[in-house]
This record gives sequence, structure tokens and C-alpha cells, in this order.
Amino acid sequence: MRDLITSTANIHVKRIRSLVRSRKERHRERMFVVEGVRLVEEALHYQSPASVLYVPEQLQATPRGRGLLSQVERQPNAAPTTPGLLAELSDVETSQGIIAAVPLPLLTPPTLSLVLVLDGVQDPGNVGTLLRSAEAAGVDLVVGLAGTADLWSPKVVRAAMGAHFRVPLVDDVDWAAVRPQLAALTAIYAATQQATLTYDQVDWRQAVALVVGNEANGVSAETLQLAHEVTIPMAGAVESLNAAIAGSVLLFEAARQRRR
Amino acid sequence: MRDLITSTANIHVKRIRSLVRSRKERHRERMFVVEGVRLVEEALHYQSPASVLYVPEQLQATPRGRGLLSQVERQPNAAPTTPGLLAELSDVETSQGIIAAVPLPLLTPPTLSLVLVLDGVQDPGNVGTLLRSAEAAGVDLVVGLAGTADLWSPKVVRAAMGAHFRVPLVDDVDWAAVRPQLAALTAIYAATQQATLTYDQVDWRQAVALVVGNEANGVSAETLQLAHEVTIPMAGAVESLNAAIAGSVLLFEAARQRRR
Repeated sequence: MRDLITSTANIHVKRIRSLVRSRKERHRERMFVVEGVRLVEEALHYQSPASVLYVPEQLQATPRGRGLLSQVERQPNAAPTTPGLLAELSDVETSQGIIAAVPLPLLTPPTLSLVLVLDGVQDPGNVGTLLRSAEAAGVDLVVGLAGTADLWSPKVVRAAMGAHFRVPLVDDVDWAAVRPQLAALTAIYAATQQATLTYDQVDWRQAVALVVGNEANGVSAETLQLAHEVTIPMAGAVESLNAAIAGSVLLFEAARQRRR
Repeated sequence: MRDLITSTANIHVKRIRSLVRSRKERHRERMFVVEGVRLVEEALHYQSPASVLYVPEQLQATPRGRGLLSQVERQPNAAPTTPGLLAELSDVETSQGIIAAVPLPLLTPPTLSLVLVLDGVQDPGNVGTLLRSAEAAGVDLVVGLAGTADLWSPKVVRAAMGAHFRVPLVDDVDWAAVRPQLAALTAIYAATQQATLTYDQVDWRQAVALVVGNEANGVSAETLQLAHEVTIPMAGAVESLNAAIAGSVLLFEAARQRRR
């Protein structure tokens, strides 16, 4: 049995805490934090974590938790801790008894055929949901422009359900930096509310980028100069859709056309 | 100037508090609670509220708030209150300075051509987002089967962005009660993960119901007996989509086909 970690001065506790709290720290260390049985399982599948803290009796309570426990007990950087200490680190209300710090995956897109660009999407739940939808719709690359919620924050990671391990992500860049990378695309489309072009009139089988903007203010002026605007026609008196919904409807229209 | 309400024994305070907290109370009184400038504006547009509490100095801070303030000051059941008392009633972290209790709208669908059935959707944010998408996609009726989050809870109302005033809703019923109402439909489709029928192979121009199930367990066994299963093909290693995303992708495919 390993020693139970009870001190907040422990190196694993300090690392995880600073990575949970600080975007700057995540960028400097090139690491992020995953929580819960399912996401730590995924993390172990892809790479070796820098730190794992776990509450053995909590993991022992479920078959899936027991499987994960026997895995983490073989990890060099894993240590048991108390429910109280884990709760202090956790970003969720009820911790599942495990949290880990893992290196940012180094993924590069094999081709660029469908790119999602987030232009000021603020809500971490929306950003994470869009990453999950992006993976399911076959997106090759997600770009988070400056002003978008940090793609690697705990809330985004949780909502994305493992997409961080499988979809190449570029974070915190501006158009000047990202445009050369997207130069081979045929077109850039931005979701807006007043466009005359409806989203199902677009040929999404071309190599394209889709830009989804801020929840309240939409896409930036700079995006409007680069992109064709497309809109989702709406019935009723609805003024707009939730940003994650609008982006997902567009991404799955692209996926639908690409299956034909 | 009306008297400032500072006591939690005031009738408006008591009414709003019990309606915020209790589903039973909402059903008994046939009323629900709306919060914030935009939703109270909408409520006033459709009907006369039973109670309005507002913080004048907070509403005065914005042009839109000032417009609403002059409206509510003419309402018989509206009274100014303190920020502290409003914060106690509020379901949100930062109140916009206005909250109201309004009667449940009595809406009946003119026709039944596209019906959304929620079968155990648990997260109020998902339910509200689905109501917002349902309105935008032209849904005639939303049915909340027993086991679904209360369609009239404050969190659902907030996420639905006014759909409650415009989309007919039937809450807390079982299939036995709702089937006769849906007898004229051509088919019922349920979103599941393993179906062989993909959602874009369905003719959504027929009169149909779409069933969206629980976030973890999908639709109920009873639904599976009544419905054809449809699935959204997914790339990557994604196991499932968020329930609100999956439902919205299906609803907007229906809307897309119906525009043609």
C-alpha cells in the first residue's frame, strides 16, 4: 500500500490544484486536468499521466472503478488521498474519487477538410459540447480564437467527453496566425442570424471552415470580412439558437452531405 | 411611489417563493415564475402577471430596463423590493432586478404535424434548450413524459428563452394518456444509438413525433415498443451526443425537409 496523501503541500496536490485553477499554468506546463472514472480511463489509454490522485474506497464501489483502480495502482505517479482533499481539488460537486494531470495531446490533422473555428464562444459548457459534436461530425481541427473560453479548462474538458484526446485543437490564436494554416480551404462560413444564404444551400463537401461566434454578439468583425455568412431558418418568434446547438446543426449538416 | 416591500411575509414574496421552489405548487396554482428583463417583457406581452417584484434602481440602469420599469409601474400586482429580498427569491446568481409569477399559458396546437416527446430528459438546461430548438424548428406540441424534468421549473424556463409562451406544452403525462392525442400521426420516431435507420433516411414531412430520451439511459422500454428507432451516424470514438444536441439535430433535419 502506498502512503495516503493528506497534505496540500504534496507535489501532486500542488500540481493538480494549479492546473485546475490557472489557464496560464496549463499553457506553461502543457498539461491539463481530467476528472472522473471515464475521463481518467481515456487519459490512461492515450498517455501516461503526470499525477493521479484517487480515493481507493470510492473507486472500489463500482466494477468500472475497480478496473481503473487496479490500473492506477500500477502508475508511478499515482497516490491515494482522502475524500476531503480530493473535494478541494475537484471542479465538480460530487467527485467520483479520481483526478489526474495529463500532458496536452500532440495531435495533428491528417487533412484539413472540415474545420471548426470558435470565435468568442464564452460558456465552457457550450465550448465542450461543440468539441464533442465536432468529433462526432468528423471535424479535423478545432481552432479557439482569442476571446473564446479556454479549450483546456476543467469545465470544457468535462463537457467534451474525451474529444480532447482525439480531435486536434489549436487554442488562443488570432486570425493572422491561423489564416495561413487554413489557406488550402475552399471557403470559410460563419453562422449568423441575418444571412440570406441558408445553411442547407452550402456545399459542405468542399474543404471548409465553420465559424461559431459569441453567445450574445455573434462572430467578430474580422470574421465577417473573411467569411460567407450562413443562417439557420427559424420558425416562431425565436431570435436565436444556443451557440452549441447552432454549431452542431451546421456540423451535422456537413456530415450528412459528406455521407452521400 | 409604491411602498417598498421588505418583508418575506408579503403575499407576492410568498407566492413567488413557493412557485420557484415547488413543482406541486406550480401545478396547483397553474402558475410559473419568469426572471430577468427579457422574459418578464415577454410575459407582459402575453398576459397579466399575478405578482411582479422589481428593484427600480437596477432596472433604471439600462434603456431596456427603463422601458420595462415604466410598464410594470402600471401593473396592479407589481411592487418594488430590495436587492437582498430579490436575491433570496432568485434562481440565478446575479439577478437582473425583476421576477414575476404568471399563469401557465393556455395554448392548443392548431395542427399536429411535428411533435417532440421528452422521455426522461433530466437536465433542466437540456429540457429548456430543447424547447427553444423545438420552437425554432416549428414543433406544434412538446410532451414531457413523467420522469422528465419539470417543464415549468425556473431553470427550464430560463434556458427556453420564451418558448413557454408560444409552444403548447403537455407536462407530466404517461404514454397511456398521450397516445390517443397522437393517434392521427403517421409515425413515432425515437432517437437511439444503435438503430440501423439513420435520421436523414426518414421522411420528416409526414406527421410525426420525435422522442428524445434520458441522458444516460436513452428512451424507455415503453417508447421502444411504440416507436421506430433512428440514429445519428457518428465519426470518431464518440459514444453519444448530448441529448439537447441530438434532439436539435433531428428537429432541424425535419425543418430542413419541410422547407423543400
